[in-house]
Parts: sequence; C-alpha cells; structure tokens
Amino acid sequence: MKTVGYAAHSENEALKPYHFERRELRPNDVAIEITYCGVCHSDLHTVNGDWGPQPYPLVPGHEIVGIVTSVGSETSKYKVGDRVAVGCMVDSCQECQHCHDGEEQYCQNGMTPTYGAPDRLTGDITQGGYSKHIVVREEFVLRVPESLDMSRTAPILCAGITTYSPLRTWNVTKGSRVGVIGLGGLGHMAVKLAVAMGAEVTVISRSTNKEQQAKEIGAKGILASTDAEAMKAAASSLDLIIDTVPTKHDVNIYTPLLALDGSLVIVGQIGPLEEPMTLPLIFGRRRIAGSLIGGIAETQELLDFCAEHDVYPECEMIRMDEINHAFEQLESGDLAHRFVIDMSTLA
Amino acid sequence: MKTVGYAAHSENEALKPYHFERRELRPNDVAIEITYCGVCHSDLHTVNGDWGPQPYPLVPGHEIVGIVTSVGSETSKYKVGDRVAVGCMVDSCQECQHCHDGEEQYCQNGMTPTYGAPDRLTGDITQGGYSKHIVVREEFVLRVPESLDMSRTAPILCAGITTYSPLRTWNVTKGSRVGVIGLGGLGHMAVKLAVAMGAEVTVISRSTNKEQQAKEIGAKGILASTDAEAMKAAASSLDLIIDTVPTKHDVNIYTPLLALDGSLVIVGQIGPLEEPMTLPLIFGRRRIAGSLIGGIAETQELLDFCAEHDVYPECEMIRMDEINHAFEQLESGDLAHRFVIDMSTLA
Repeated sequence: MKTVGYAAHSENEALKPYHFERRELRPNDVAIEITYCGVCHSDLHTVNGDWGPQPYPLVPGHEIVGIVTSVGSETSKYKVGDRVAVGCMVDSCQECQHCHDGEEQYCQNGMTPTYGAPDRLTGDITQGGYSKHIVVREEFVLRVPESLDMSRTAPILCAGITTYSPLRTWNVTKGSRVGVIGLGGLGHMAVKLAVAMGAEVTVISRSTNKEQQAKEIGAKGILASTDAEAMKAAASSLDLIIDTVPTKHDVNIYTPLLALDGSLVIVGQIGPLEEPMTLPLIFGRRRIAGSLIGGIAETQELLDFCAEHDVYPECEMIRMDEINHAFEQLESGDLAHRFVIDMSTLA
Repeated sequence: MKTVGYAAHSENEALKPYHFERRELRPNDVAIEITYCGVCHSDLHTVNGDWGPQPYPLVPGHEIVGIVTSVGSETSKYKVGDRVAVGCMVDSCQECQHCHDGEEQYCQNGMTPTYGAPDRLTGDITQGGYSKHIVVREEFVLRVPESLDMSRTAPILCAGITTYSPLRTWNVTKGSRVGVIGLGGLGHMAVKLAVAMGAEVTVISRSTNKEQQAKEIGAKGILASTDAEAMKAAASSLDLIIDTVPTKHDVNIYTPLLALDGSLVIVGQIGPLEEPMTLPLIFGRRRIAGSLIGGIAETQELLDFCAEHDVYPECEMIRMDEINHAFEQLESGDLAHRFVIDMSTLA
C-alpha cells in the first residue's frame, strides 16, 4: 500500500514529506488510516540520534489513532470502520513468559518498537505514525472506546501508559500520596491519572511557576525543589514519585520525600543519573526503580479508564507541516501538554 | 552499676580498657551480664569516625548476648538467669506508626543506637557491648532460644537481621533466585538464611576464590563479576540481590542480573554509589533499594528461625584484648566469618 508521511533523513535535519510503502496485509494484520498522531519527546530524541544511530529515512510517531480500513483474512478482533489505536510497539514473540503475562514491553525476545526497528518476519524497518496509514498485527491494535474523543486520545498511547503502568504497578489507590516530578507531557498525564485513581498528588518542580496549571488538573499544589524549607517539611510524605525528568539529574533531592517503603520511578531519563546516596534508601527502605510503557492489555485498560473517568491529555492540535516548529518548542522547555498532529492536514 | 569495657578514646586510636557506670535500673530495664559480643564492620567505621565525629570515649558493640542479672520493678518479660540478646538499637519512641508496626529501626522520632547516641531520657551517651554489662529497656531485649549455642549467636543480632529483613521484605521463599554480592560477615549470613528459606543462592564476587566456602554454606556457586561471558549468561536470572559491598561501587554491573521486577538491596555501603544507568531499571522494571537491620519482633523471629533451622554465623572466637588485631584484619579484607569476643576474657 502506498502512503505518505514525514520522515527524518538524517540526524538534526528537519522532517520532510516522504512517500513509502506499507506492507500488504498478512492474515493477522489490520490496516489503519491514521487520523491523529501525538508528538512524543522520544520522537525527537530518536530522529536526532540521541539514543544511537538510526535507519534513515525514518518516520517517527507512536501515539496513533485512526480508523480500520481493511483487515487480514484471519483477524477476528476488528472490522472496517472500527476506531483503533497503536502505541509504542507493534510486535513481540508472543511466546515468552512476559508476553504470556501481558508484559509484551518486556518481551524476552525483544518487542518491536513502532518505528526504527526491524520487522520480526522480514527485517524491514518499521515506520511510525507521522503518516497517513499503518499496518499492524491485530494483537497490537487497541480499541478506542466510543465515548473517547479521538482528537484528544493519541497521547494516551505513550505519555498515558508510561505513567499509568507504574501507578498501577505500585498500587496507587484512593488516599495514596503521589509526587510527580516535572509537569511536561508525561508529568501532566501522571497527575491526571493519579488524581482519577483517588490519589493526593503533589507536583515537584524547580519553581512554582506552573502552580495554577497543576491545580487545574487536580494536583494539590507544587512543591518547589529549590525551596529547602518546604522540601524538608515534606520529608517522608510521599508513597510514590513518578520522575519524568528527561535528562541526567540528582535523585538525592527527591528520595527523602518518600515514606517508608516508598519508590521513585524513573520514566523520563534514559541514561545515567547522578550518584545516588544510599542513606535515604537504607534509612527508609526506599527504592529507585524504572518502568517502561505498559503491556497491551494494560494499555486497553487505560483507554477504558480514560473513557470512564473522562481523563484526557492536554492537546495542542498542529498541522503536519508544523512538526519541525513543534520539535523546536519541545526542545526549548517542558510544556504541560502534548502536540497532536491532525493527519487530515497531510495531503 | 560499675562495669568495664574496651573503648575508643579518639579516631584511629587502638581500643583500650575503660571503666564506666551503667545506669541504675529503671522500672522497665533489664540488666545483662554480657557473655559474647560480635565484632561488626560498623564498629570499626564508627570508632574511626568514618561516619562523622563521635562522643569519645566510646564502647562499640551491637551484637550482644548474655544472661539477665537483675530486672526493674515493672518488667514482665524476663527474669534473672534468662538467656537474652541485644542488637543495634536500645530504644525508640514506641508511639509512632513505624514503632506500632514493629519497625522500630525506622522510628519516626529516631531510634536510639546501642552505642554513641544520647539516651532518650537523660541524654547520656549509650555504650555498647564490648563490656561486661549492659542495661536495656525490656522492649529491646530479645530472648535466645534454649537450643541456640550462645557462643555462636551474637552475629545474628546485626549481620543476621540486616540480611534476614530484606529477604523477608522481598518475600524470598522456596525457589526464589537470590544473589549475594560479597561473601563477608553480612554476605555469608545472607547465603545461609536464604538457603534455609529454600532459595537458590548465587554468590557474586570479583573472583571465584571463595567458591569452596560458598558451596559449603549452601550456595550453588560463585558468579565472577569480572567474567563478562558468565555475567551476560546470567542476565535476568535473579529475583533479588543482597548487595553487601561496604564501599562506593558500580551497581550497573549487577542490575542486569535481575529478572523483571527484581530488586538489588543495598545493606553495606553508607554513602554514594557510582552513577547508575537507568536503562536496566526501565527495561526490566528493576529496582535499587536499601534496608536497615530489622524490627524487634522480626529480630526475635530470626533468632527462632536460626534455632529451628540450625543456622549459625561462622564465628571466630577472640579474647577481648585481641580486638585491635581483629579490627586490622577486618580492614584488610572481607572475611567470610565474624569475630566474636568471649567476654569472660575481660577481667
């Protein structure tokens, strides 16, 4: 199938239109016309080569929603016209223990990311959602509940699941005390989801500049990490911290905020952290952990959860040809919302 | 009560005999004639001032066993002649949530260490077990089961509980795959206790020099951290790692050994770790944690567990006047056993 998208052709070069082929449908495939695609900071990192050399030309995008346009001969879950979504992975072995447990993101034979990775069968490089169409095996296609507004759904597929999964893994429930470091694309979703679970949520940020925004989405306020008195007063007050900081940073500022047995979960930075001190870990049985997106069943659970609780990412709609400008804005600061590409603007 | 012990009189000075007073019994106190006291690496760190300035003269020692010689007017748990033990703490507020939960080591008002800390009532500095007698409130006195050999019990009170508590907290049971980094005082106890719980235990060490020792205490063998091939083959194979390394080190060598949701628990080093990489944490939902000794009820549970399972620390008995030589040996390498002072050798 012929399609068109926006691709990076080398590191640090602006994305530009790219015509390419999607594979013919395999028996278990679903073809999707993409209506919206969220813009994730990972897209920028990847096309810039921050995480290693890439197979250019590369079409990024892994927060995908659209409509089913055709289905393979052996599919059973979807039919033409269904409202569907695709997240950060499009395949996995389906045979290992983690796949059996619904944790395909940790597939022991390696899951296949939505873009920039070899297809398990052909070795062809996967291409993402900054495009008109995508073909994905049905096990990795999610259903978008009828009541969800498609135009505001896309960022749930990465920013949403990346924060929802640790909130669930660490058993956040009514009354849990949750801290969220950073109020960007991931952070603002963490706040909304934790609030919807009944948690008391504190945003932790360098300044209180975004306090109004934090409160509007349900946080009780901002704890300024630069305010030594406030940080001291907040010692041992949080059960879980979702750390969305996407650069190398010092977790020693935050670990004393955790109560006994509390965990700080890294979901932003891929790379080193500054040297952690063991004292707050030992003297509070505190933990530093990491978490990667979520499994397929859990992602479906999240879409249903968002529909039930009327939780949406803050979305700023852009045209496909505005993507390079959006990347510039992403690079210059943490925006408490997500850009979403209206794919109808791509001719 | 007049007593005698061995005290440090300044940093980096040899311990020497010291005559001092134990407090008169309060209504809830128990007086103990100490028969044996274990020698912990913390004793050395503390008297050397490695963890900050100390109130000299200071009598170290927090692995204490002995016989009750008198009891306060309102005690109910112990009577003269009882076989008892005292570990790393001698008091806590008994009022906070953590004390109520049997986690006195994390007392929210601060527990009182067995030596070098102000008594909660008088402010007098506590003095430890390298002495003939000690007076402790009964809530912090443990019972030594009849079947335990007193001469080999002392190290259970610190090396034992420091490793038993995380094994319990992280639910080690039959079939758990446990790694133990370092085969010293803590490490050899971690191996014995995990084996007694039914775990499959691997010692992780720089070389396989101690393989025979590791196997003799129940480990299946040694994984050499310097053997890149073996380390790669062992990726994702452990549910829990007890990290007893007492110096700044690189946990990135070990975190890939953890299976999904596995934890590496620091019990040795108090201070910084080298910069951790988040990749193995994120791509395996792995965790780095800390753990501090254990609560009083849990320490009693451990003494009973050791009696039931015939688990003993490897002990090398020394005379009180050999303590400075023992410190030198402790400093020069990780010995897979504990020195225990026979207190009858102190005149």
